[in-house]
Amino acid sequence: MTLDDLPTPCLVLDLGVLKRNLALMQAAVARFPGLTLRPHMKTAKSIEVARLAAPDFGPITVSTLAEARTFAEAGWRDQIYAVGITPAKLDAVAALNAAGAAVKVITDDVEAARAIAAHPGGLQALVEVDVGEARGGVAPDGGALPEIAAALGPRLAGVLSHSGHSYAGRSPAEMAAIAEAERLAITAAAARLREGGLAVPIVSLGSSPTAMHAARMDGVTEVRAGVYMFGDLFQGQIATHPLDDIAVTVLASVIGRRPDRNTLLLDAGALALSKDRSTQAAPRDWGFGRVLDAAGHPLPGEPMVARAYQEHGEVHAAAPLPFAALPVGARLRVVPNHSCLTAAAHDRYHVVEGDEQVIATWNRVNGW
Amino acid sequence: MTLDDLPTPCLVLDLGVLKRNLALMQAAVARFPGLTLRPHMKTAKSIEVARLAAPDFGPITVSTLAEARTFAEAGWRDQIYAVGITPAKLDAVAALNAAGAAVKVITDDVEAARAIAAHPGGLQALVEVDVGEARGGVAPDGGALPEIAAALGPRLAGVLSHSGHSYAGRSPAEMAAIAEAERLAITAAAARLREGGLAVPIVSLGSSPTAMHAARMDGVTEVRAGVYMFGDLFQGQIATHPLDDIAVTVLASVIGRRPDRNTLLLDAGALALSKDRSTQAAPRDWGFGRVLDAAGHPLPGEPMVARAYQEHGEVHAAAPLPFAALPVGARLRVVPNHSCLTAAAHDRYHVVEGDEQVIATWNRVNGW
Repeated sequence: MTLDDLPTPCLVLDLGVLKRNLALMQAAVARFPGLTLRPHMKTAKSIEVARLAAPDFGPITVSTLAEARTFAEAGWRDQIYAVGITPAKLDAVAALNAAGAAVKVITDDVEAARAIAAHPGGLQALVEVDVGEARGGVAPDGGALPEIAAALGPRLAGVLSHSGHSYAGRSPAEMAAIAEAERLAITAAAARLREGGLAVPIVSLGSSPTAMHAARMDGVTEVRAGVYMFGDLFQGQIATHPLDDIAVTVLASVIGRRPDRNTLLLDAGALALSKDRSTQAAPRDWGFGRVLDAAGHPLPGEPMVARAYQEHGEVHAAAPLPFAALPVGARLRVVPNHSCLTAAAHDRYHVVEGDEQVIATWNRVNGW
Repeated sequence: MTLDDLPTPCLVLDLGVLKRNLALMQAAVARFPGLTLRPHMKTAKSIEVARLAAPDFGPITVSTLAEARTFAEAGWRDQIYAVGITPAKLDAVAALNAAGAAVKVITDDVEAARAIAAHPGGLQALVEVDVGEARGGVAPDGGALPEIAAALGPRLAGVLSHSGHSYAGRSPAEMAAIAEAERLAITAAAARLREGGLAVPIVSLGSSPTAMHAARMDGVTEVRAGVYMFGDLFQGQIATHPLDDIAVTVLASVIGRRPDRNTLLLDAGALALSKDRSTQAAPRDWGFGRVLDAAGHPLPGEPMVARAYQEHGEVHAAAPLPFAALPVGARLRVVPNHSCLTAAAHDRYHVVEGDEQVIATWNRVNGW
């Protein structure tokens, strides 16, 4: 079967690009002996990708109970469920742990910490620390940090931060500076707790760009990153991976042609691409995605999906589109702005390796 | 089971509001004797909703082959698949028709029309006419219209337009004006073809706001509309339904609290809400959704999800949030900006009727 045989729109994953992106991150982490890479499965949500990114059932990060359950049942035991936990979700985590997994939760709330400590099941938790993103997490120097850690008692597994604010950086030097600020904040938090007599085995930080560009990792036990596996038009512009090394594309068909306006309509719209506009503030705004030919090669005038309706994507370009080669039914491939959100619109990957032969179909773990 | 028992995030559908919205549209269409409502299932994508919106297997509109197949197998035979068809998809449509359905396709392309005419299966097609949206469709007064109709030959089923540009209108009077312009354009297209000796049984137009507010429907055989079933914060502001009559909400849990910043974090982020920002240009910008209490009632300061990360939604409000009543784990409900995109992130509806008792679970037909 080739890409020509697939119904459109659908999601294509290039195994060769995926392997290059995985190797790039593994090499970046290997600069620091003893540092563990805990890949975040929130982007790929795939057992087959996890086999490559976290071989031998190595440690992983997840973002939903559905992922935790799927990966635990498939053999990945050492997980961090890296979204603030609620008491109602503890039974599900404890059940996975009773079946052999070691799914650790995170919290930045003292009442939630007390619920974790009081739960009858086997649970471990990390305290989430805010290192500048201003989303979740306690301040590394405030009173909440030791209070939550004490409430967890022997269930304290460590501290965790996320440097999502690194996405505002644009160069490797900026990423390295944000990574160093994150390292200083999270290791200071760990040191405070240790000075209070607590064990803090895990000191976990990361994001794809900071994991790639950090200059130091002293005091850190592990880094988390996820979007690096596939990359996207945003990450490619903030130096996480080469701009052309984006492993996922949406295969789409031409469903309309307007040479008078130099536009095409594709059968990939907001549902197939997402409405993520993360490149809006990047050096190059790619609308709702960059449009390549069926083989994945650039086209003259760098077409992009400039408007996204529910099922229609409208392609604009800076040069005349090759209408003669693009009748209704012709195939194109759309590179995502933000691979996490685009991939989430699809229930499976059609896997290729450098050409248009489909070598496998891999399911995704969508939903919660 | 009540909403308290559901894992979050998940999608809640209020049957009472749905029924009110359906009745409002049915009454709007009933103003014009002989006019058929052909509900568009692209928003609801649900057999149970179709039973209410298109009872007795009445005519429906669909936007994907997955919908066409599901509704055909469930008994809805008279369908229009209202996204420009490609030759590769004709076999699937012909197979449904061979099994008893009457799924009609649309095209605005002469080569596609020839492929439809030449296909060995049973097919009927409408010519898509552009009435001002400037997306798909041929001009009502250009040469392509009769050329495509002639290419279809006896497979011509009619003409079809979509007034998506009505979304730029803001008042019932503006909607009525756009609806009348659409009516004049599509009936002129039908008249041209009839003058050429062709039969044009179906003259189909519509969008939720124009279907609701049209003043005349002479010459039109049917109207299509879909988002009216659920409504959303955008449609509520352009007078499609009362702003409070929005049938779907995302049930979410508090996962973080920052009284110093007057913000909450919810476990409903970009994946559960979509990144649709359609209210950005509406009178009231609701960010990524309006936040109600667990019972679906407004809260002081009109909180909304102002930032949406993959799994985190950050709530901002114009008045102090009621932190004492909202510990980690507390439930809130998020009203969508654009119900088509928010609902598409979920695989089922948890149905309630005015209170928090869950009376049914209805599956959605996602994907393609």
